[in-house]
Amino acid sequence: MPVPQLVLNQLPLLAGLPQVTLAHLAQQCSERAFAKREVVLQKGSEGGALCFLIEGRLQGVDFTVDGREVGLYFVNPGDYFGDIAVIDGETQPVYVTAVSRSRVVFVPRDLIRPILFAHAKLAEVLCTSLSQRVRQLSGQRRILGMVNPVQRVCAQLELMMVVAPDSAWVRNAPTHQELAIMINASRETVTRVFQLLQSRGVVERSGNDLRVDNTDFIRDVASGRKPADGPAAA
Amino acid sequence: MPVPQLVLNQLPLLAGLPQVTLAHLAQQCSERAFAKREVVLQKGSEGGALCFLIEGRLQGVDFTVDGREVGLYFVNPGDYFGDIAVIDGETQPVYVTAVSRSRVVFVPRDLIRPILFAHAKLAEVLCTSLSQRVRQLSGQRRILGMVNPVQRVCAQLELMMVVAPDSAWVRNAPTHQELAIMINASRETVTRVFQLLQSRGVVERSGNDLRVDNTDFIRDVASGRKPADGPAAA
Repeated sequence: MPVPQLVLNQLPLLAGLPQVTLAHLAQQCSERAFAKREVVLQKGSEGGALCFLIEGRLQGVDFTVDGREVGLYFVNPGDYFGDIAVIDGETQPVYVTAVSRSRVVFVPRDLIRPILFAHAKLAEVLCTSLSQRVRQLSGQRRILGMVNPVQRVCAQLELMMVVAPDSAWVRNAPTHQELAIMINASRETVTRVFQLLQSRGVVERSGNDLRVDNTDFIRDVASGRKPADGPAAA
Repeated sequence: MPVPQLVLNQLPLLAGLPQVTLAHLAQQCSERAFAKREVVLQKGSEGGALCFLIEGRLQGVDFTVDGREVGLYFVNPGDYFGDIAVIDGETQPVYVTAVSRSRVVFVPRDLIRPILFAHAKLAEVLCTSLSQRVRQLSGQRRILGMVNPVQRVCAQLELMMVVAPDSAWVRNAPTHQELAIMINASRETVTRVFQLLQSRGVVERSGNDLRVDNTDFIRDVASGRKPADGPAAA
């Protein structure tokens, strides 16, 4: 099923492409809906398509040998994913699953790959996003070296926090379970840390978001300037 | 000090550029020697240049808040580094230090950045390498979720192992100390695991390299198919 060109027009990565190219891509794309928890990309599958999330929310996940789920990153509407396998020609490195009901557009690899590198603007967006992912993963690697789970939670929140002039937010905040698998802790520990943070007025849930009322507290604990007292069990 | 064009000619990333571009770059580059353990790039510094290792060996490292060193990746002769900050315009994400005496060429950011995206071949090399780093970091993230240090060592060796038809090698194998900081273990634990692996004829040091004589053992322990008995203390 071809995808309306209007849908592709609204994807940030493809925004700079000529209309004739977009029209051609639209003809060759396909779209699919996924239920909550459904697997969108299998780990180890061929990177046959560059994927775009149109609606919903996805998460890149992997599993440890003892079956524990490890959360790696989130995909939000407008984002592309599956790019790693499309670019380097190896298999899909992790599972991508639907956190909520989602719609995904698939652009065949052989069609999109030459376009990615032939347009300086696309290459720049692609490289910048990959760079940010390396940054994010290196940051998360650093968090896992921290011994205290309060510090790990604060460091992870700092990594996800967007600071506006008069407020700070973690948009689409992960659940305690999702946060737990990101930082190698139990769900119970994360819940205890959140009870501590909320009782001290540091954070407050607001719908899908988390409002951070005391960014200094988060930063000081994350950096080790403030001792991370509170629940110590990992 | 300008750098001989011959030096740039031999760098894989720049190999496809026209000679006139290389001649221009050579005029604007600078070269510097670094002693063992010297810091080549400071974390948090401006990404003022794309860097190429001409001779020696470097390591990307970070430090946990309690001062423990965390090893992230190695840089070998011919490799470029410092690309993350050059690409996304933020500061250098980690320290890069000299593992041995090294020579580095610096190409100014404003000069090289437009060239990276304007040449499809360069953009492709850049994207492919960033993709592989995301892959590597995700793999390492997975290793850190493993409880048993024998399994963590085997999984890290599997990640670094290059398998030829009649032999398997980890080239320029990290020291026990370097391996320890990669996998969040103590140096003593890594040494005990290596004693175990050597006594079973699984691996053997050969100069700077590590020869893997039993790749199945490494893979089976890494994947959890074989129980990772042996030293259990992390």
